[in-house]
Amino acid sequence: MFEIDFKFVEPFELESGEILSSIELRVTIYGKLNADKSNAVLVFHALTGSSRIGDWWEGVMGDGLGLDTSKYAFVCVNYLGSCYGSTSGKLLKKKGLNYKNQLPLVTVRDIIRTNVHLLEFLGIKKFKAVVGGSVGGMLAMQFGADFPELTEKVVAIGATPLSPMGLALNHLQRQAVENNDIEMARKIAMLSYKSPTQFNQRFGRKPNRNGENPKKHHKNRFDIAGYLDYQGEIFRNRFELESYRIITKAMDLFDLTDEQIQQISAKTHLVGISSDWLFPSKDVLDLAKRFRRNGVDTTFTELISEDGHDAFLSDTGKMSNVLREIFATEDTEKTERKKHFQINNLKVVSGRNCVAA
Amino acid sequence: MFEIDFKFVEPFELESGEILSSIELRVTIYGKLNADKSNAVLVFHALTGSSRIGDWWEGVMGDGLGLDTSKYAFVCVNYLGSCYGSTSGKLLKKKGLNYKNQLPLVTVRDIIRTNVHLLEFLGIKKFKAVVGGSVGGMLAMQFGADFPELTEKVVAIGATPLSPMGLALNHLQRQAVENNDIEMARKIAMLSYKSPTQFNQRFGRKPNRNGENPKKHHKNRFDIAGYLDYQGEIFRNRFELESYRIITKAMDLFDLTDEQIQQISAKTHLVGISSDWLFPSKDVLDLAKRFRRNGVDTTFTELISEDGHDAFLSDTGKMSNVLREIFATEDTEKTERKKHFQINNLKVVSGRNCVAA
Repeated sequence: MFEIDFKFVEPFELESGEILSSIELRVTIYGKLNADKSNAVLVFHALTGSSRIGDWWEGVMGDGLGLDTSKYAFVCVNYLGSCYGSTSGKLLKKKGLNYKNQLPLVTVRDIIRTNVHLLEFLGIKKFKAVVGGSVGGMLAMQFGADFPELTEKVVAIGATPLSPMGLALNHLQRQAVENNDIEMARKIAMLSYKSPTQFNQRFGRKPNRNGENPKKHHKNRFDIAGYLDYQGEIFRNRFELESYRIITKAMDLFDLTDEQIQQISAKTHLVGISSDWLFPSKDVLDLAKRFRRNGVDTTFTELISEDGHDAFLSDTGKMSNVLREIFATEDTEKTERKKHFQINNLKVVSGRNCVAA
Repeated sequence: MFEIDFKFVEPFELESGEILSSIELRVTIYGKLNADKSNAVLVFHALTGSSRIGDWWEGVMGDGLGLDTSKYAFVCVNYLGSCYGSTSGKLLKKKGLNYKNQLPLVTVRDIIRTNVHLLEFLGIKKFKAVVGGSVGGMLAMQFGADFPELTEKVVAIGATPLSPMGLALNHLQRQAVENNDIEMARKIAMLSYKSPTQFNQRFGRKPNRNGENPKKHHKNRFDIAGYLDYQGEIFRNRFELESYRIITKAMDLFDLTDEQIQQISAKTHLVGISSDWLFPSKDVLDLAKRFRRNGVDTTFTELISEDGHDAFLSDTGKMSNVLREIFATEDTEKTERKKHFQINNLKVVSGRNCVAA
């Protein structure tokens, strides 16, 4: 595994028209790029993830696993606006914006464009696949639509344009963040990432494991409440308010048009999670049908799990198997390249190798 | 319709052992009590409801409707701790408690006992039925278990002991209330009261109806977000922080034991709502099976609706039909009275008739 920090010191224009004077991106690469760099797979992390795939997809990426490091090199870029090495939300807030306290609108398309800027430096001409879960799945689909020449496969897990229930959950999370209560945001999010069945099995109506008895005092908690509070606490120390607002807003705005879908030439694999209520499997299936109606070569797979939306991160054995099968699929048709890769106004001006754990 | 305000000026001991020096209860009665007062039905309101059944069950209660005012008299008591005429949460917080800022634990059993205290004054010996939805359904079941001699039927709609998902939702709502953010509490609650399908139909991904465009500015909302904010705003003016904490805590603690269930002698009707994810219909069915295993004469009905948990309030035609059918059911067996009604330590010391809209 090695890491590179890129700094682009030319202006980067966001989809909104706002111009950032420079951006930084952290990239992590696992496995070994072959001589012609034709074995690269671009992986997109989820809302609060980092470019270190190994930190959150252990059991899914590795030698002989679904994301097989003995065959492919896996590249992941921390999102513009995230807080794990790239230009963070806090920095974006400070940079070049006209209004006090305003955050820039960063879109899924903007994030995709930052990733594509790196290709020239990395010497990769085309990815074997672009892969992601949740917001990472949105990015994979948008990548396929915006840069169809640059990937053979699109793999999106537990991802569709957000439903109104999803928009509502994100809205409440951002409102909590506005009140400096990122713990509340995380706790609301956790509910949407898990499934009722999983909660029944793990927590039931047990009192909090620290021994407090909910029947004895108004503030005493059940175990599920203690769990959520703990998740909130550890999150405060690892994520940034502004990054949370920027990336959830990007999620909200992701919404492929039919015209965009028609641009996708990659073989596309949509994966639904059976117990996911944030991105219901039925919605993923409906999206797969819509892709097909729009001429995209699309498969739909359901990952059967009780882990809810989080299953793509937690049910690693099943996730690995689903990905192994998808990567084993032969591309039966070579679709025409429909769109030219556009050269961007940004260039790599610095890059350094990092040794990391 | 007429209303009565009762004031009990003898000490009332809560299940927790805390003693309240006095309590007030507001009662509303619809329809006409017959000469021997044998046609009374006790109705329990939901979390934020009042004793005015007509305000929230229009289309369900009325002449010829499911709750038929031409046959029965419907009695509803505002909960101890609520803020619609009974001793409110704010008052409870002030009264006779030992710790600064502590709220008393009020349980579903406490609320039931306050209702039973009124029977003597009202001259009612036995209810034709006790009926409620959501926390009202919890109260109906607890009433049947604690005072089996006092009702012929128990009707509980969309109610079971709270699942860990439900406990989690209540926990987050109470934490919002601790931060004086009752609007956030209401908004989280609204998500749990509605169904994804209903949101898809009503809101989809439409921009907020006030014209703001979510793609143009970071704070601009989709329609679902504008709707939730509006629901939060109107709620702040109509409900009390302490009442919210007290009643949601009572909900959390409701959890019938097998021994309690075995006390129920009333014919019991449990109703699940097909799209309810706060109290899933499957959980209601499982509870009905558990009632049967414990010797309770129990039916299960599913109300098919896309309105989510709220369907018992919003899908009035269907709710009315379900209740009409339940009230038409003849009691085929007369079960033995298993438990004596215990005389309580409180007496009616004042009661006045109120003319109200």
